[in-house]
This record gives sequence, structure tokens and C-alpha cells, in this order.
Amino acid sequence: MAKNNGKMVEAITSMDEDFAKWYTDICKKAELVEYTSVKGCMVIRPYGYAIWENIQRILDTMFKERGHENVCMPMFIPESLLQKEKDHVEGFAPEVAWVTHGGSEKLEDRLCVRPTSETLFCEHYANIVHSYRDLPKLYNQWVSVVRWEKTTRPFLRSREFLWQEGHTIHETADEAIWETERMLNCYAEFCEKSLCMPVVKGRKTDSDKFAGAEATYAIEALMHDGKALQAGTSHYFGDGFARAFGIQYTSRENKLEYPHQTSWGVTTRLIGAIIMTHGDDNGLVLPPAVAPVQVVIVPIAQKKEGVLDKATELYEKLKACGLRVKLDDSDNSPGWKFAEYEMRGVPVRVEIGPKDIENGQCVVATRFNGEKAVVSLENNLETFKDTVVDLIENVVPEGMFNKALENRKEKTYQCKTMDEIIKALEEKGDGFIEAMWCGEEECEDKVKEATGVGSRCIPNEQHEISDVCVCCGKPAKKMVLWGKAY
Amino acid sequence: MAKNNGKMVEAITSMDEDFAKWYTDICKKAELVEYTSVKGCMVIRPYGYAIWENIQRILDTMFKERGHENVCMPMFIPESLLQKEKDHVEGFAPEVAWVTHGGSEKLEDRLCVRPTSETLFCEHYANIVHSYRDLPKLYNQWVSVVRWEKTTRPFLRSREFLWQEGHTIHETADEAIWETERMLNCYAEFCEKSLCMPVVKGRKTDSDKFAGAEATYAIEALMHDGKALQAGTSHYFGDGFARAFGIQYTSRENKLEYPHQTSWGVTTRLIGAIIMTHGDDNGLVLPPAVAPVQVVIVPIAQKKEGVLDKATELYEKLKACGLRVKLDDSDNSPGWKFAEYEMRGVPVRVEIGPKDIENGQCVVATRFNGEKAVVSLENNLETFKDTVVDLIENVVPEGMFNKALENRKEKTYQCKTMDEIIKALEEKGDGFIEAMWCGEEECEDKVKEATGVGSRCIPNEQHEISDVCVCCGKPAKKMVLWGKAY
Repeated sequence: MAKNNGKMVEAITSMDEDFAKWYTDICKKAELVEYTSVKGCMVIRPYGYAIWENIQRILDTMFKERGHENVCMPMFIPESLLQKEKDHVEGFAPEVAWVTHGGSEKLEDRLCVRPTSETLFCEHYANIVHSYRDLPKLYNQWVSVVRWEKTTRPFLRSREFLWQEGHTIHETADEAIWETERMLNCYAEFCEKSLCMPVVKGRKTDSDKFAGAEATYAIEALMHDGKALQAGTSHYFGDGFARAFGIQYTSRENKLEYPHQTSWGVTTRLIGAIIMTHGDDNGLVLPPAVAPVQVVIVPIAQKKEGVLDKATELYEKLKACGLRVKLDDSDNSPGWKFAEYEMRGVPVRVEIGPKDIENGQCVVATRFNGEKAVVSLENNLETFKDTVVDLIENVVPEGMFNKALENRKEKTYQCKTMDEIIKALEEKGDGFIEAMWCGEEECEDKVKEATGVGSRCIPNEQHEISDVCVCCGKPAKKMVLWGKAY
Repeated sequence: MAKNNGKMVEAITSMDEDFAKWYTDICKKAELVEYTSVKGCMVIRPYGYAIWENIQRILDTMFKERGHENVCMPMFIPESLLQKEKDHVEGFAPEVAWVTHGGSEKLEDRLCVRPTSETLFCEHYANIVHSYRDLPKLYNQWVSVVRWEKTTRPFLRSREFLWQEGHTIHETADEAIWETERMLNCYAEFCEKSLCMPVVKGRKTDSDKFAGAEATYAIEALMHDGKALQAGTSHYFGDGFARAFGIQYTSRENKLEYPHQTSWGVTTRLIGAIIMTHGDDNGLVLPPAVAPVQVVIVPIAQKKEGVLDKATELYEKLKACGLRVKLDDSDNSPGWKFAEYEMRGVPVRVEIGPKDIENGQCVVATRFNGEKAVVSLENNLETFKDTVVDLIENVVPEGMFNKALENRKEKTYQCKTMDEIIKALEEKGDGFIEAMWCGEEECEDKVKEATGVGSRCIPNEQHEISDVCVCCGKPAKKMVLWGKAY
């Protein structure tokens, strides 16, 4: 954590004044990232990286519980390999970084830095999958990928980003589809439980599918400013990649068959989603499950006898039950510390001073709603410990989730016509639009042109807003969730 | 794990016949790696990657206990940034991969894929270090790096490899030197305790220093074939990088000073070291601390009543004390399973069949020495559990370490003259040579030319072989450890 060189904690631009600046202020001032001379790339600093490590740890455990194994593929893809699947190369070739020289030698076949690794996994599967006995393979890797974006923003869109990419291969289409859906549900569970961020599960329209996929599923979240953020995707490939890469296996019936594949991923973008879902004008608000520091203990008048001893006792008590606790006994003033840890989004703050000790109590403040409570230190600190653990495990996560859900509800508008969409956005500001669609790409494009909102997904949970397409008035096939997106 | 498609476990080339082929056989047949169409790069497969994950977990904990924080730097370095430190760019520029295009756009400043990240850390430190209050910074990152090697071998030398790189920055030279030595000791402790691999700690001669370092320290291990392997390095930079990158801080005396830096790293090469330190003609032999599976339970005549139930009981008992256990109840024969898990280096095998159950016992076999013991299942399996835990935690690691140490002792030769070196290598085969050195680079080169062994390091623990240089006969300054190296 930064030391106070006599300065006050710097103020953050208010959300209402300039949401984009508020966002970058938090990224910089909470020391999540720093810019570099590599355009569009960033340093993820210790506090930001610790959030990512917690995300990794929780997700990796969830993957392994589901039978996935980690591997590591090369970071380079030969141009000739990238070109094997037609749609895939069309989608990615325009935005990759090309390695043309190794040392002083010019390469015959250029290498791209992986933008995603389907082609490498396919090459590997062609080598190792021969029989139905070799299936399924449930692989994942934690790596970084590169996409040559024009405009970049920390976490949300950068030329290099960290992610995990799951790649699985199965005997049947049914199994692969089941896996695609299972991993979408896994992501949704993680976002809702660990990140306290409500998401809508749905399927992308055909115009928005991953390059090479038969179907792309996504979870969509609504940020505080009413813009949508795609928080994770899960793709079903059918046997398209298998055919392009010549992956075949001998089936139980002793026939040569093409296997079916999936891929799925989430990225460091989730950190951007956390900031914009929960943050406020005082800074970051972190979900306890991924907060690098879950509880900070701030001693008041710490030079008075007994204060630091008692603060240390509280620290030890919480540490012993596995919480990530920090006792800040630096020379900075309590006021500075309050502001600093609020800005850094520490979920729970414990204040303990001479008067508290006299009264056998302390003050416990929760970051997301600013509430303070007096908690007894009697009973060998058991009441205190139980209160803090309950806050971290239940009260704060539920409260944060409900607050975010309230925001999404307020900013979700049901619209029957294009005019209603335009009016809703004008009067209530950006948000999710629920509106019906006939299924034609033409109408999708027209809605975007006329209203500025694009289709986010076709939600799994459908409800009927009307029976005709919001654009052409022909019979509607699906309710689509529309919005402006990060 | 591979399924037995009716085949026998394939034989491995014997070590004595062809050590290099023995090595690659193990890499392939134990399913640690697979080749790809990206020259010099490999897929690390689940079983290989699980070993790396265990290495990461243990080392990361050791780093964090020492106060290090993880960060993530970009994978690219602009050519102009790489050129800031003269020695550094000279050392690395000839062996980097160059990115010249992003999408279809040609880059003005070429980017290299990081071969190491000193330059990026320095740029970052110049941004964030201003006062002595900002020091030290104890940073580390777990990433992959690229060096354009001509000849490659799995784990030992590949164009891309995984590693951790620590980068620290301090107020004083003393602090930085202390850190350099502390991390060398950390690596030595890890190698000896967790990998059961004895190492020699020492300092590199000037001709062998890291590009840009004032001093490079290394741990050197001796492989089964008598060749040396550098298992980890720790560099002290003085303030050279700080001067080149303009990193300055206001000291406690309110003066502008240059800070002092270190870096240190270990790589996936450690997996190669494990293979060549402990492996034998039956395959891999894994140290329990990093083995993906520590104990395999093989039921005998598993279709007989009660066998699988009892095997499951043993499994649950070991699982409950946190061991990584596998019960193989597949249809493969016990003989096939024995050979398969021996090849994969599983440290302990438990055999349980109808006769064992009748006698209230099971058979426990240890991989590294092939010993078998009969263990009682009485006393609610407590004796069994205690025996296996003791094997995994104590008996096997100590036995493996001592066996490797014996091998190193047998293959370490004290030599007073060049002729003695030549004779020792001819008669006893490759190994470590302990011989005195005057300190002149010329003699170092001559020894290499005449005998084929290069200086590995100047060991911290010195003993006097003679009082004159093995080459020129002038007064000796240091005992050097010489050897052929991977």
C-alpha cells in the first residue's frame, strides 16, 4: 500500500460528472494499473494483480471440481495454422500482432501472437485423440493473449490481457452443448456469488457469434452508468474445427467420426466490471471474496497505552479464522486511513480507540453502504469475530448483490416500439432494453442505427413484451436484451 | 492419464544406451509435453503442467512469506526501451522475437517479445519510486518469456518457457546484496527440500554474468549423466540499471540518490532437472512435494467381493489427510498399472487384493528404490495412514535426496592439473570438477578448450585443492566448480 508522503488522499472525479474519468481515476489512484511505453498495454500492479489472483483461485477450483485440467500451449501461432479454419482466420487475422523475425533471421512462416488458441488446441487434439477412449478432453489454460485494438482502456480493452481459455472435445454434439451450457452457468455462479454482480445468461445473435462458432453464449452485466458489459462467453463449435483440422476418432461402433468442441473464457475485464458495478464517488468497492484485504483495522490514538495491543488482538483473532486482515499502525492519521481504505474498497473497517477499549467495544464499518455498528469485545472476542465473519461471508455479499440488482432493475426498460426505446433512453438514461425481435439481421442493424443500442443477447429466461418485432412489426421470435456495450 | 487401448506400456530407451533419447522418451511417454508446429515451442500437457503448478504453489508461498508481491508487466518491450542499458541489449537483442506489424499496420518502433523484463520493471520503477518511503519494492511475476534458441529440447531449452522473475529495488547496495543472497538461499532450500535435489550455491565468473549485472549467483545441480544444470539464478545490479533508466529517490538525508536493484528467476527447466536427477530406466521418479499424484492405489483381482470397497476405504483415509491420491479401478491389468505408474513416477503405490484383506494388510511400494513393505490395516487404518504419510513427508524425500547426493559425490573429482581433469573425465565419465583458479578469464577459456568443461560457479563453500591455478600455475584465488552444462 502507498505510504502517505504528507499528502491527503487525492480526490476522485465524481461518477456523475465524468464516468470515464471516474473509472480511470480509480484504476490509477487505487494502484490497480499503471501505463507503460507499450501502447495499449499496462502494468497490473500488486493491488490489481491480487484481485486477479483471487479470481483465478476461485475459478480454478471450480474448473477442477468439474474435471478440467490445466495445460499450456505456445504463445505463437504459425500463419499457416491460423488459416485452417476460414471464419476463424477472417475474424482474428486483422487484429493480431505479427512476429516476422527471430533474432536477425527472417521467418519463412510468420507467427502471430495468439489472440485465442483454438487452432493450437485443435492441432494438439489431432495428435492425441484417436479413440473414443481418449474423449472427452477437458482442458484449460491461464495465459495472456494479444489483440491489436485501436482504442484501449485499462482492463476493459487492452492490446494484451490476461484470461483463461477452456477448450474441450467430446464424442457427441449433445455432450459438447451440455458442456457449453455448464460453463456458462459456472461463470454466472461465480459472478453472482463471488463478484456480487447479477448477470443475464443468454445466447448471442448470429451476427455476434465468435469467429468459427456454431453458437456463442454469454453473460451480460449492467454497469452503474447503464452500459452493458459482456463478462464471459462460452462457445459451441459443433464439428467445424475438427473437420478443418482433421481430428477424427474411432467410435464405440468402430467408425471414424469427427468429435465436437467447445471453448469458453473470462478475462481481466472482470476487474473493470467490479469497478463499474460496485464503485462509488469514494472509490473502489470490492466484493469480499476477491478483495486482497477483507478487513482493515485502524487504531485510534494508537500511541495511547493498550490501543495497539488491543488492535493486535483483534487482528490475530480474525487472522486465525482465515480472513485477509491488515492492521495499519503507520503514522498516518486515522482520517487519512479511513479515506485511503475506502478508496481501495476494503469491505470492512474496524476502528478501535481508548474509549472503545474502556467500553469493551469497537466500531465496525461496512464499505458498500457506509454503515457503522458498535460491536462488543466481550466473550473472548467471539461476538466480534462472528460479526465480522458474518459480514464478510453473508451480509456484505448479499447487500452488494442486491444493490447491484436494484440498479439493474431500475435501468431495465421494456419497449414495444422503436420510439419507446428512444424515449426510454432519453428520459431514463442508458440501460438494458427488453424488446421483441423477428430474428432477421436487418432488423437488428436497424435498431442499432436508429437507437444506438445493439443486441446483447437472447436471454435464456424469456418473457413476452409484445408479439411482434420491435422494428418490422412482423411476428416476433424472441425477446432480445439490447444495450450500449463496453 | 492415458487409457490402455490394449497396448502394453511402451518401453523407454535405457539411460546407459542413450541418455538423450531416454530423456525425450520420458517427456513424451509420461505425457509431460507434446511437440507442435511452432518450432522450438511445446505443449505442456496436464501431467507436466500439474508438476509446474505444484512448483509455483510452493515457491509463491515462499516468496509471499518473504514479502514479495506479484505483478504483471506487458509481454512486449519497445526496441527503444530495450536499448537503454548497453550490456543488457547486447546480451539479449540477438535472441529475441520481433513483432513488426499490428494487424496490417507496420509499427514505427519494433517490439520484442520479452526475453526477460528488467527494462519494463525499470520503466515502472522510474514512474512509481520517488522517495525512500517508496522503497523497497519486492515484486515478482509468473509469465512466459521467449529466446530464439537454435537447438531446443523440452524443458531444458525452448524458445518459449515459463518462469518467475523477481525484480526488487532498494535504498542501499547492502540491502540489495542481502536480497540477492536471500533469494539464492530460497531457491536452494526449495530445490533441496521440495525437489530432493542437492545444489551447489555459488557465484558466476565475470564471463558468465547476466547481461547488465554486477554479480550473478547461481545454484548448480548435477544430473545423472554427470552434466551440470543451472537450476536458478539471482542477480545483483548495483545502480547500473537505475542510472540507465533515470530512477532516483529522495533519501532519508533529503538527497537525490540512485536505488540498487536485483532480479532472480527459476523456470520450467526445473522439470527437466527433476527428470534427470531422479529418473531411471523405468521412467520418471517424482519428488512427493511436486508429484501430481502422490499415492496410487491398485486393487488386485478387483472384481472379487470386497476388494474395491477396501481400496476405496484406503483411498478415503489418505485423501482425508490431504494427500493427492488416485484409485485406479480401470479394467487394465495390475501389471499394466504397475508399469504405467512407475513410468509416471508416482512416489508410492499401494496394492490391495483378496489375500491382503484376509490377512488384514496391504503392500506399499516406494518408487525411488523399488522397496516393498507389508503394512497392517488394523487399528482403524491408522498404522497404514501413518506409514504412508511418513513415506511421503520424510522417508521418500530424504531417500531421494541422499541418493542424488551420493551420485553427485561419486561424480565430483578434485583435480590439481589439467591432465588430472582430462584423466578424471576419461576414466570416470562426466561430473563436477573442483579445481583452483587464478581469476583470469584467459585461464577459464583455456580450461574449457583443453578439457571441455566450463566454469559453473565459484562455490560459496570453498575448500583448497591446491594453492595454484589449475591452468597457469600462478597463485590461485578461488576454487571453481567446473563441468559440462545443459
